[in-house]
Amino acid sequence: MSKVAERKARLHEQLIEAAETRIEAHSVGRLHARDLAADVGCSIGTIYNLFDDLDALILHVSFRTLKRIDTVMAESIADTGETEPLAHMVTLGRTYCDFAVTNRNLWGALFEHALPADYPLPGWVLEGQLSLFRHIEKPLTHYMKGSDPMLVGRTARSLFSMVHGMVSLSLERRVSGVNLDMLNEQTEFMIRTFVKGLEAS
Amino acid sequence: MSKVAERKARLHEQLIEAAETRIEAHSVGRLHARDLAADVGCSIGTIYNLFDDLDALILHVSFRTLKRIDTVMAESIADTGETEPLAHMVTLGRTYCDFAVTNRNLWGALFEHALPADYPLPGWVLEGQLSLFRHIEKPLTHYMKGSDPMLVGRTARSLFSMVHGMVSLSLERRVSGVNLDMLNEQTEFMIRTFVKGLEAS
Repeated sequence: MSKVAERKARLHEQLIEAAETRIEAHSVGRLHARDLAADVGCSIGTIYNLFDDLDALILHVSFRTLKRIDTVMAESIADTGETEPLAHMVTLGRTYCDFAVTNRNLWGALFEHALPADYPLPGWVLEGQLSLFRHIEKPLTHYMKGSDPMLVGRTARSLFSMVHGMVSLSLERRVSGVNLDMLNEQTEFMIRTFVKGLEAS
Repeated sequence: MSKVAERKARLHEQLIEAAETRIEAHSVGRLHARDLAADVGCSIGTIYNLFDDLDALILHVSFRTLKRIDTVMAESIADTGETEPLAHMVTLGRTYCDFAVTNRNLWGALFEHALPADYPLPGWVLEGQLSLFRHIEKPLTHYMKGSDPMLVGRTARSLFSMVHGMVSLSLERRVSGVNLDMLNEQTEFMIRTFVKGLEAS
């Protein structure tokens, strides 16, 4: 790699890290190019030389967040030492809640940042999102033997929507949300009851 | 009522209606006082004379939306002619999905419009939100006899979060969402399976 290419690659990485730090500290809505330029010591023009726009930079941060969720999900299941699929599903739900609560703004950037309607979502972001579902699909398959795989996939996404909806409404302190201190317990109750329903089907 | 008070009350109502029309047509993010002033033929100053700020005006629109959801929920249950609590729960889920899909922007204003962190939520908005849960709690109680009423209340909110999360992720066309044309069917599957789980508990 030439010196120029090396410097470009390093700046690219530094800007993503600076954006991540700022988003976590102040929320995605308060991310400004001039602050990032000051953080890494480059011009605003350099940022737009390396990224199409701030949305593109935010997508890089989102991808890192998705990877981190992927990692904590995999680790949390390994940590339980459990083999029961239901225990894995409960652990995944709790892990997702914990991640959202402790990384409020990074998690918010994933879901609350609205891209322009015609903004093309890069394939690597889509793959990062899809890869999370394999964690849920794996134990879920155990309780949906013989079901249409499309239904299993939809149900994994619905269970994610359930926990995600509970976390969102809770964190935004909507009246419709569950109190934050009851979130983990209630998530477990919902997952256990749902799986009981699958078993009874 | 004096002529002046009458005119004020009429303008108050007209502005809420104009805001509702504009939010439904263009989304809450594109609501501007100058457009509303032109719509009803008053000055921008008059708007801020009648409402503290645009957030206050949006809350009035949100309250009307909550009341409309309340009405369609009550009517949808009456329309089924069913007495089975599970049928009522499924109907409520489907009705909520349909309302969100057909009133995309009004529904969005309820949940996507972020009030400033310290903005006081008026009591009448809170009550409008809470009143929706009685629809869910009523049939749910049937399947949770003997449970702590706090758990029943939390579960009603969790089931709302589930359907709400499914609708949100679906409407935003997130990869994590369920395809919009499968939303109603999948909502029904989730509610039926969950209730089966309650019955098996």
